[in-house]
Amino acid sequence: MSLNRTWVLARRPEGPVAASDFAYREEDYAAPDLADGEILVRTLIFSCAPTIRNWLNPPDRSYRGAIDIGQPIRGMAASEVVATRHSRFKIGDLVTAVTPWQDYAVLRPDAAVVPVTTIPRGMDPIDAMTLYSPNSLTAYFGLFAIGEPEPGMTVLVSGAAGSVGAMACQMAKLAGCRVVAVAGGQEKCRWLEEHCGVAAAIDYRSGDMVSRLKAASPGGYHLFFDNVGGQILQDAIDQMVPHGRIVLCGQISAYDTGRPAAGPNDMMKLVYGRLRMEGFVVGDFAARYDEATAAIGAWSASRQLQCRIDVRKGFETLPNAFAGLFSGLNTGTLLVTTEDSSA
Amino acid sequence: MSLNRTWVLARRPEGPVAASDFAYREEDYAAPDLADGEILVRTLIFSCAPTIRNWLNPPDRSYRGAIDIGQPIRGMAASEVVATRHSRFKIGDLVTAVTPWQDYAVLRPDAAVVPVTTIPRGMDPIDAMTLYSPNSLTAYFGLFAIGEPEPGMTVLVSGAAGSVGAMACQMAKLAGCRVVAVAGGQEKCRWLEEHCGVAAAIDYRSGDMVSRLKAASPGGYHLFFDNVGGQILQDAIDQMVPHGRIVLCGQISAYDTGRPAAGPNDMMKLVYGRLRMEGFVVGDFAARYDEATAAIGAWSASRQLQCRIDVRKGFETLPNAFAGLFSGLNTGTLLVTTEDSSA
Repeated sequence: MSLNRTWVLARRPEGPVAASDFAYREEDYAAPDLADGEILVRTLIFSCAPTIRNWLNPPDRSYRGAIDIGQPIRGMAASEVVATRHSRFKIGDLVTAVTPWQDYAVLRPDAAVVPVTTIPRGMDPIDAMTLYSPNSLTAYFGLFAIGEPEPGMTVLVSGAAGSVGAMACQMAKLAGCRVVAVAGGQEKCRWLEEHCGVAAAIDYRSGDMVSRLKAASPGGYHLFFDNVGGQILQDAIDQMVPHGRIVLCGQISAYDTGRPAAGPNDMMKLVYGRLRMEGFVVGDFAARYDEATAAIGAWSASRQLQCRIDVRKGFETLPNAFAGLFSGLNTGTLLVTTEDSSA
Repeated sequence: MSLNRTWVLARRPEGPVAASDFAYREEDYAAPDLADGEILVRTLIFSCAPTIRNWLNPPDRSYRGAIDIGQPIRGMAASEVVATRHSRFKIGDLVTAVTPWQDYAVLRPDAAVVPVTTIPRGMDPIDAMTLYSPNSLTAYFGLFAIGEPEPGMTVLVSGAAGSVGAMACQMAKLAGCRVVAVAGGQEKCRWLEEHCGVAAAIDYRSGDMVSRLKAASPGGYHLFFDNVGGQILQDAIDQMVPHGRIVLCGQISAYDTGRPAAGPNDMMKLVYGRLRMEGFVVGDFAARYDEATAAIGAWSASRQLQCRIDVRKGFETLPNAFAGLFSGLNTGTLLVTTEDSSA
């Protein structure tokens, strides 16, 4: 018998999320009898993604998948299969899946909204949680299927040092575009310029976004991959070229405010600018994941895609690590391993 | 020598436009010497379109073409060519063009943003200003080029009793869609249901838009052709099907408020709803006008397109007629003839 630790939602954060919004539970754990089609996994690595914040909201503002009070938080995780009644999964397989924040969880792969994916033998689980993660797929499909970049375009990416944003920057560059990145802090901007091939990185904390956006691309922006929303979206709209396209990937600026993310304050700029704004969710592209992972694999093999990873140790650090996301305390994709932090 | 009457902008309206924002001028008029490529026209019929309201704003909020204080208002008009130094136009030709609100005006067709179009012999100038007007072309290209309707879709149209909206309703119906219209007042709604083939017309003045939108299409809306913006846009976003498309044609609800038209108050609904919003201006489709007028001509010949016209007499009535647009005082496309109202 082993211990099953769990982080549950203690209360719904009304403004900024805090570690105290989560409650720790533990119980002795005996492997349950699985039903047909189920697998039992032991979690290894959790990804703290901003989108989890939406699921902490009341159902009308969680968009889909609100977590009930007292229920486990969930997010992408890499896990090991420890028992299986599903023909596609064997004991010892490593998988990525949306998983409760606990040590052991029963998954039903055939009913999962986000695919339960076997990590190929030989692939580092960290790579599976970064390079090949839903974050990368989100960047890939948002950029190529929604944004449709063409060589020579100038592409603006907000939240550019995040796990989706950094991929979007590099993929846009690989598509032959000139890339301008917006991120929070000089250090992140430097990393983007030195490692992600962006032509310019703008620190939104330094203020005066409008003139910085203008300076970085006096001819305007053809495509804006927006992870942030809010004021950055407002400022970017004014700098779009006619017929520009805005990919609505996320609105992280509002996730932690307790209020919905407001849209443009002057819709006539979209009319006269002939701008297109379009939202998407990566799950709609599941049938094309192989195409994306093949492309990512090839770019990675030729060392054209960089991942920056911020790995924390210890299941107990999950709430604090997650809350820090919204003040930008992480430097790269934020992963938390379940191993003891003192180990 | 004749009189040239002119309505100029006396001051910029800060909220609702009033007749007193315009000033009347008149002067004795002798035909000027034309330069090569110019034509002199005598105006016959003006169209009072809501978009003119945007040009009364300061340059930063007029989007394009702000009218200076003291300068003539301008808008679409049907006119007679009375002198010409342009090979394509003969004396006696009737043309439609963006023209100052005055009796006589010099136009330079080759430099016009909106094409100066000769009205075919035998066509009623009223038809040229309604059926074949930029309003109809706006409905055509907004619907077909931006909205891309498919048979079986449910299409929502706001400002549906307006000159663009009524065309959009009927064209969507002709495209095999089920059409739900939003308009102001029971009488307009009745007209839409009885003459424009809409499945349901919702009077936004009766309140409770959300439940009416739901009732009119419990399965949601695939396409929203939005002329209005504001609260109607908010309410519609909640009723769009996943991957729904919103055609941003205009935002008339805000034109007369002195404030820009605010966008959606929850952008995550666009993200998770996979919604697309796209603005357009009809002038971008000038190369395809013949296609549109041919289609409109065929539909009209088979009596499948209805136009509702509200014709006022007298150049002096222009400001009052125009101001009434924003309280919905017109019943149909608002035209003002230059002939004496006592005639």
